[in-house]
Amino acid sequence: MCMGVWLMREPQQDRSRLTRQRLLEATIDCLADQGWAATTVGVVAKRAGVSRGAAQHHFPTREDLITAALEFMFDSRMEAARLEATGLPAGPGRTEAIVTRLVEYYTGTLFKAALQVWTAAASDPALRERVLPLEEKFGRVAHRTAVAMLGVEDGDLIAHRWVQLTLDLARGLGLADVLTDDSKRRAELIKQWAADLDSVLHRRRSGEQEPVALS
Amino acid sequence: MCMGVWLMREPQQDRSRLTRQRLLEATIDCLADQGWAATTVGVVAKRAGVSRGAAQHHFPTREDLITAALEFMFDSRMEAARLEATGLPAGPGRTEAIVTRLVEYYTGTLFKAALQVWTAAASDPALRERVLPLEEKFGRVAHRTAVAMLGVEDGDLIAHRWVQLTLDLARGLGLADVLTDDSKRRAELIKQWAADLDSVLHRRRSGEQEPVALS
Repeated sequence: MCMGVWLMREPQQDRSRLTRQRLLEATIDCLADQGWAATTVGVVAKRAGVSRGAAQHHFPTREDLITAALEFMFDSRMEAARLEATGLPAGPGRTEAIVTRLVEYYTGTLFKAALQVWTAAASDPALRERVLPLEEKFGRVAHRTAVAMLGVEDGDLIAHRWVQLTLDLARGLGLADVLTDDSKRRAELIKQWAADLDSVLHRRRSGEQEPVALS
Repeated sequence: MCMGVWLMREPQQDRSRLTRQRLLEATIDCLADQGWAATTVGVVAKRAGVSRGAAQHHFPTREDLITAALEFMFDSRMEAARLEATGLPAGPGRTEAIVTRLVEYYTGTLFKAALQVWTAAASDPALRERVLPLEEKFGRVAHRTAVAMLGVEDGDLIAHRWVQLTLDLARGLGLADVLTDDSKRRAELIKQWAADLDSVLHRRRSGEQEPVALS
């Protein structure tokens, strides 16, 4: 179907929403492929097939565009994760399936794009101020989502720590995949980790003792 | 003591070695503070108090300077880690002390500098080619050092995987510390992780069963 004809049939509001979404997706791809320095409003507009003027109407500055893109993509992924987890059957494979999916989020395009922004923000105080609320939100929502997916109880401090360890491990595995395809090594580690996490969660549910720090 | 007088008493070769070392240390600090784009031979030379000509005599290109700096600092840190581990007493605190030290390497200036270079290399094929052999070496040597520090036996696949998980976790904790001081959360996670790692290593030594993946 011809894109022009299709767009003509869309009401104004839907066209605007579609343009916005195309810009946000192109921003993430551009950051991941070409890096922070190359990702300007002009470059992203071209990549999305949108005029520079239209792009600037939606996102006056590069920082507006980039933070909106990270937030939009993160929200979509977390929503998808929640939906997907409800469809996973209970049983021995469930923990491994969830860990695999969590790690996938940290090795995908969104993580690679976010890494470019975080790293640029480390030496750019104005960008850092823009990015900090996102970092806080991403950490909080990812943890809450993983807790819900794994069925961890609210007051279980040790199980909550294991969920945090899982997310920090996933972040580390994501970083190990930036320059090389680390998928073979990663798959072995995910299997081992999921088996250990699964037995910790089982022991927590049955009230058994877990090794804890002395102090 | 006056630096000038001190330098005059040094033979030529030592002066040259000292200049080189000052440049390498300034490179790491500059990358961590000011980021990849700002870290040029000229900026580093100024920071190190060395003339631009002298800096270019040692390191003709920015890539030469940066890769030499990463390798020099990594080698120094690993050597320090090895020496330090031999001084740690055996007993319940040893594993935690080692994990704490390993994580410190991934939250320090060297990690923050390397992150700038890795992230730049993700969208710069020529830099990526320069950095890949370093990444391979750093991964291999860090693993070997951690295995030796923790006293893991050569053929013990599961204990080796736990060492890998420890290093990947440390990398993830390092990334969580780039924009904010994450030390409080990290200290709790390190305690939990060290307690679990310690009991796995004990069980491995005594030949008990460990949860392993089904396939």
